[in-house]
Amino acid sequence: MAPVAITPISPPSPTLDDTSKLTKAGTQTILSETVSNSSPAVADLDASKLIFTPNLNPKSVPAPNSPEVWSQNYTTDHMLTARWTEQSGWEAPEIRPYGPLSIMPTASVLHYATECFEGLKAYRGADGKARLFRPDRNARRFLQSATRISLPGFPPEEFLKLLKKFVGTEAPKWIPEPGQFIYIRPTMIATAPALGVQKPREALLYIMMVLFPPLDEPSPAAAVPKSLPAPSTQTPTQETKRPAAGMRLLASSHDMIRAWPGGFGNAKVGANYGPSLVAQGEARSRGYDQILWLFGDECFVTEAGGSNFFVLWKTPEGRLELVTAPLGDGVILEGVTRASVLDLVRRTRPDIDVVERKFTMQELLKAADEGRLLEAFGAGTAFFIAPCSDIHFRGVDLVLPLGKGVLADFAMGIKKTLKDIMYGNEQHEWGVVVEEEKL
Amino acid sequence: MAPVAITPISPPSPTLDDTSKLTKAGTQTILSETVSNSSPAVADLDASKLIFTPNLNPKSVPAPNSPEVWSQNYTTDHMLTARWTEQSGWEAPEIRPYGPLSIMPTASVLHYATECFEGLKAYRGADGKARLFRPDRNARRFLQSATRISLPGFPPEEFLKLLKKFVGTEAPKWIPEPGQFIYIRPTMIATAPALGVQKPREALLYIMMVLFPPLDEPSPAAAVPKSLPAPSTQTPTQETKRPAAGMRLLASSHDMIRAWPGGFGNAKVGANYGPSLVAQGEARSRGYDQILWLFGDECFVTEAGGSNFFVLWKTPEGRLELVTAPLGDGVILEGVTRASVLDLVRRTRPDIDVVERKFTMQELLKAADEGRLLEAFGAGTAFFIAPCSDIHFRGVDLVLPLGKGVLADFAMGIKKTLKDIMYGNEQHEWGVVVEEEKL
Repeated sequence: MAPVAITPISPPSPTLDDTSKLTKAGTQTILSETVSNSSPAVADLDASKLIFTPNLNPKSVPAPNSPEVWSQNYTTDHMLTARWTEQSGWEAPEIRPYGPLSIMPTASVLHYATECFEGLKAYRGADGKARLFRPDRNARRFLQSATRISLPGFPPEEFLKLLKKFVGTEAPKWIPEPGQFIYIRPTMIATAPALGVQKPREALLYIMMVLFPPLDEPSPAAAVPKSLPAPSTQTPTQETKRPAAGMRLLASSHDMIRAWPGGFGNAKVGANYGPSLVAQGEARSRGYDQILWLFGDECFVTEAGGSNFFVLWKTPEGRLELVTAPLGDGVILEGVTRASVLDLVRRTRPDIDVVERKFTMQELLKAADEGRLLEAFGAGTAFFIAPCSDIHFRGVDLVLPLGKGVLADFAMGIKKTLKDIMYGNEQHEWGVVVEEEKL
Repeated sequence: MAPVAITPISPPSPTLDDTSKLTKAGTQTILSETVSNSSPAVADLDASKLIFTPNLNPKSVPAPNSPEVWSQNYTTDHMLTARWTEQSGWEAPEIRPYGPLSIMPTASVLHYATECFEGLKAYRGADGKARLFRPDRNARRFLQSATRISLPGFPPEEFLKLLKKFVGTEAPKWIPEPGQFIYIRPTMIATAPALGVQKPREALLYIMMVLFPPLDEPSPAAAVPKSLPAPSTQTPTQETKRPAAGMRLLASSHDMIRAWPGGFGNAKVGANYGPSLVAQGEARSRGYDQILWLFGDECFVTEAGGSNFFVLWKTPEGRLELVTAPLGDGVILEGVTRASVLDLVRRTRPDIDVVERKFTMQELLKAADEGRLLEAFGAGTAFFIAPCSDIHFRGVDLVLPLGKGVLADFAMGIKKTLKDIMYGNEQHEWGVVVEEEKL
């Protein structure tokens, strides 16, 4: 075998000139760090220490709908990294050229899934501004996930500052036009070269950005380059290029459980994803987009693929009700989109009861039988709002109105409202403007 | 921040001279590969293609009980790697200098825990031969774990050939003296640089070896170098340096569940380990060695740390019974040591009923109350046979006879028999001699 492909990383050493391009704080901190080396204190994550090493070989930005965009694997010029050790705490964060990581074969992350991540997007608004959507929630959840997997903690507000600084650096080049967005992936991994199953002693936090086609909307088939191998049917959080008819779900079998009470289904840790691939592969091979994850003998409905799952129905008493699985038992992820849907409907639709409770496939089937089932949809960052057209549950096909060619009005209404906030058509506290820096 | 420490890998290109040092087959295959390049077939893992790139900067072998050995992080000179791609299948395996892996930040293994591993040991026998213990079982389980996490399959017998070849290369230098052993860690990770939650399209299989102190036996305190920071209390599979008094277990709380029926507790995948670190940390902080993992409202006893768990008791009817959790529901790992204990006792002790069934903490407590509880022990590769001295279960301390200073005779008898096989004192089909090659 040829030696495994190796791309040595030799980023140029940061200089004061480099860092001064980004922030004065960066420059100042390099100096003050030298002074504080005598202090044995464990350092916390500190955005004011950020230093910048520019990519001297920047990439070109591919055209919208080009093969590069459809590959869903085209990153921007830089990544943000911050290294942590048990002895010294967080080192100064750095924005540096995107490239491979050098990881020892014994590193914990490669054996024990000591890893967690986040997913969010940056949007270029009609007003020319770049926005994040409720990034404070991602920052807090990132901390919760890290803690659940014994990775180091950090002040979420410092992480948020770093995230904004990084987006502010990359957005001008990578999402230049109104209506464009880019996917952001914060990650933390345990890197210490030690085989012991133990609390991580070294970790690396990193953030990168990946170009994405607008998978949440039907796009002209012609736009998908024909020369490509079948475009990946998945986005970072299991999004698929759904047919306009809506998302098709295959309910999980009783012997394939995603998460359980007392487990870690409520944390965005790697351990929730890899083990789901077998079931997901079965769904694909049978013509479905995602698994609808059920739990327990009662067949409680929990999540759809990597998204939260909502149902709009009429109760037997005739009330409109929006229902989704509850957070209490730790089986589902507390999605940012989920929280936003709940908030939004509670604020704006007094005619709809919004309920977080356990509900079952039997309830869904009964509501469908009695003509009370109106809509169902997935809600997640990459997925966004994805109306569901049908669910296959152990020999039964549950077909939603959407499957008959009618767009899901309720879900689509929510989607429009959220998009208006994301792209700045509506000024809202959830849409957080990022200060940008032309390099 | 200084750029993350990078050690570029530039192994010398293999030459016919290099490979001919190892095997003729290696040389032959390099030639035949050139011929078969025209074939588009997806290649299977093939040990006859093994090539060898020697480490030109070999390390020294640290003395027994030196700080390097106690660090449990001292690898041998080489690692074995084999790369797989969806398009081409398995490339030729290579034994090459041990060193860092270059992994893209988007690689699946860093986000979705698409990773699995094995753990076994090589032993230097009294007869001077190097042996593995039932490595065919590790090979089969490695394949099962890979399949469970959607990593590529391989013929287990080819993996076994590679494993033996690698051990045969490293053993002469690294376990020179009778009574020595070394820990072996086969690993597989998904390396394709793509954020999609999808079936891995590229993977790397690798095997490495790590020096270990003899943690399963009380060793003279003086032998532990005093200059070290507290030696790691864990081996690759959660072994601890146990006090001679035996392993102390803290029963898991109801809100911390390791595995669930329909999950993946029966696969050696990373996802089972990282999420257990929080509970393990609590056990350590309260003075226990490991978590005794319970399941369900009934408090079924499943595993102890990363090991299987056995109890020897008298039934209320007065029969001697050895009991351990069953494999059927997929909650526990099918340990090689577990299978060997079961086989051995079934063959040699007609006076003991050997039972694989669900059993509860209440049964344990009742047996202890009635004076019927004789022994309990963990069984695993790194752990080996580890008698348990006490279990703390929700306010109750269950103390086993061992805790009173008496060695566990039954468990120790099993341990001696297995060791005799491992070190070749007894010729047995479980002890597989490895052909060695002086480099």
